[in-house]
Amino acid sequence: MTQLEIARKGNISSQMELVAQYEGLEAEFIREGIKQGTIVIPANVNHTNLTPRGIGQGLKTKVNANIGTSSAIDDIESELEKLRVAVEAGADAVMDLSTGGDIAGARKAVMAACPLPVGTVPIYQAGIEAISKRGAIVKMTVDDLFDSIEAHARDGVDFVTVHCGVTQTSINRLRRQGRIADVVSRGGAFLISWMLYNECENPLYEHYNRLLSIARRFDVTLSLGDGMRPGCLADATDRAQIEELLIIGELTQQAQEAGVQVMVEGPGHVPLNQIETNVQLQKCICKGAPFYVLGPLVTDIAAGYDHITGAIGGAVAAAAGADFLCYVTPAEHLTLPDIKDVRQGVIAARIAAHAGDIAKGVGGAVEWDTKMAMARKKLDWEEQIRLSIDPEHARRMRNRSEFSGTACSMCGQYCAMDLMDKYLGIAVPKC
Amino acid sequence: MTQLEIARKGNISSQMELVAQYEGLEAEFIREGIKQGTIVIPANVNHTNLTPRGIGQGLKTKVNANIGTSSAIDDIESELEKLRVAVEAGADAVMDLSTGGDIAGARKAVMAACPLPVGTVPIYQAGIEAISKRGAIVKMTVDDLFDSIEAHARDGVDFVTVHCGVTQTSINRLRRQGRIADVVSRGGAFLISWMLYNECENPLYEHYNRLLSIARRFDVTLSLGDGMRPGCLADATDRAQIEELLIIGELTQQAQEAGVQVMVEGPGHVPLNQIETNVQLQKCICKGAPFYVLGPLVTDIAAGYDHITGAIGGAVAAAAGADFLCYVTPAEHLTLPDIKDVRQGVIAARIAAHAGDIAKGVGGAVEWDTKMAMARKKLDWEEQIRLSIDPEHARRMRNRSEFSGTACSMCGQYCAMDLMDKYLGIAVPKC
Repeated sequence: MTQLEIARKGNISSQMELVAQYEGLEAEFIREGIKQGTIVIPANVNHTNLTPRGIGQGLKTKVNANIGTSSAIDDIESELEKLRVAVEAGADAVMDLSTGGDIAGARKAVMAACPLPVGTVPIYQAGIEAISKRGAIVKMTVDDLFDSIEAHARDGVDFVTVHCGVTQTSINRLRRQGRIADVVSRGGAFLISWMLYNECENPLYEHYNRLLSIARRFDVTLSLGDGMRPGCLADATDRAQIEELLIIGELTQQAQEAGVQVMVEGPGHVPLNQIETNVQLQKCICKGAPFYVLGPLVTDIAAGYDHITGAIGGAVAAAAGADFLCYVTPAEHLTLPDIKDVRQGVIAARIAAHAGDIAKGVGGAVEWDTKMAMARKKLDWEEQIRLSIDPEHARRMRNRSEFSGTACSMCGQYCAMDLMDKYLGIAVPKC
Repeated sequence: MTQLEIARKGNISSQMELVAQYEGLEAEFIREGIKQGTIVIPANVNHTNLTPRGIGQGLKTKVNANIGTSSAIDDIESELEKLRVAVEAGADAVMDLSTGGDIAGARKAVMAACPLPVGTVPIYQAGIEAISKRGAIVKMTVDDLFDSIEAHARDGVDFVTVHCGVTQTSINRLRRQGRIADVVSRGGAFLISWMLYNECENPLYEHYNRLLSIARRFDVTLSLGDGMRPGCLADATDRAQIEELLIIGELTQQAQEAGVQVMVEGPGHVPLNQIETNVQLQKCICKGAPFYVLGPLVTDIAAGYDHITGAIGGAVAAAAGADFLCYVTPAEHLTLPDIKDVRQGVIAARIAAHAGDIAKGVGGAVEWDTKMAMARKKLDWEEQIRLSIDPEHARRMRNRSEFSGTACSMCGQYCAMDLMDKYLGIAVPKC
């Protein structure tokens, strides 16, 4: 049985218990959220070494890190090192987006090493293997695609991105829209190319029940991908994107009716003043299903700093109700991320998630900040470092300081806190 | 005459012309904004090598970088190098916050080298010189303080932070409030200590006309500092902060009536969901006077990454109407910023300012992103690098890529753009 089916029966699974403990909530709250479709626990029945995480309404905003081989760099070891760094930096989930070398081998290695939920995009493997087996991505067969999905499910993958909402209707909306950046989703582009070349409907849409059957068997959470996500600010919140969202809304409901857990993916490149609208639209159209956003990036011009543009958008999205942030690394738009980029990406997304959690009132969020504030007031540097989001990094910077002891690293002898202690004498409130 | 007096007479100064050109607006728009008090041009009559910048409603959001010597590092050369880096990275203004060594010498060197508006906090020098001359900050005389302000004005400083709203009333509000972090503004702490020790009103409040007279003589723009700004999320938007804002609102009006240009400083540490309220409050209470915010930082726990927490808050503040962002560097709360931190801080604040400008519809902002989107669609890497906010950094990262030619640095042969060009054939719209 899937977590959704268990919840519907009124039962609490061990995964729900663990998630409740991690969140500091009652297990019944988790069960009810899963039943309503506002919470998912991606937990494939074959993923044995999993520490489960819940994603959805009322829970801490979660962070995903993408790793994976490419045609340029197909060294599995270096990807496992990125996995290690992502987990250490505090990611809540990892997607293996491998497209180079032994794709299945990379996935199995990631599954074996990863204590967190693992996601994949099975069409990458299906499309790339179609090149070697049949000469082109567009020569992929429908069975190739479903066989790939089933292989991922069998390997224990907890959630899969499936671009089911890319239909002939949404392609026509795209054509009539006239975009600058057309389609920037790789999986979406694979499917659209296939659909146009073969003059067929999207098999993930046409044979959606086949997909649901695989997902239900292994309790793979569907992450309904947005193949039409905008690739630049100018394309954001356009008719092609919203058409696809409408279709995804219907598919979300169908999945839930079939007992399959489902979340919805969102943009992408979105101006700051459209983010709240995007979150609210998804929440309304998909009846509160968890929302998994990529960034969003609030400007197109900051190549090399897209962990920052993504943190701005992610914080605002999380505050508005987004549940799951896909990290963006400083390498985005320019090159493949290295270990340092992975670390920067995870930390930036965690900052965004936490800022959003404070704003939306997730339990325990603001208490962390209050502890830090009290450590600052006491000029207790060890405690400040311990409470920092990246203690190792904070310690390195503090050690660079010319000041030592309790002295403030910024102001030294002219410390505002010291002066206030001497002259104002307001006691630190106990809270 | 000050820019405000010139604007009131219906005349357009050369500074207004230059600002209008830079903004792509009519000089009459600038003049009217200055007259209404919603725009300032900090341009001291003695700052001869100045490229003026406008700050306020309808203009691009501006970015300030803080530099300056400290008691730990009093090497003027290294601060001039930070100045050079800040200007090169695209800062719009620089504050010299020197507190170590030859403070006046540092200021004169910065003034001579800086083509942008320069700001200072004169009470730093007055307070620190009081230690050597009279034994303690609290032994500073009223004349010491005003002499320092006048010396700064005479040297050509374009704007000064003056914490005029720290009064006995606001200190009492602070006492009754009971804060975690009390006061974290250094200038505010100097003044409060002085006021409590000497049992006197704040001389900057009591002798406000003396301050206005100096400001008017040299056309120094007053930046009314928020000595009561919150130093942690838990203290944000509290009664002490808002009491001070009410006083600052009155002083803003008095300054404008006296022909003195004025802007208002704001927090600080503010939860994401309180930022818009903070901006709207300032705009209402200070009748649209330009708002200069420090960050704001949307969480306390990201020491070592406060350029990111500041960029999140700054973007949201700018979108809500803030006009001027003070950068925060990765070193904030831990150590003094080095050259690399200065660069990171300026770029992060510029990203925030630009994201805000897109959201609030400042002319020319979105066009930059559209150009970048079109360069991406064409896989024109030289153009993408040229259009990046930090082209040198973008080039270094692109050069790290395993791909070359037109190939996308992320996806190589599986490029969504390439696939779409082949199969979708939607022409790039001319825009």
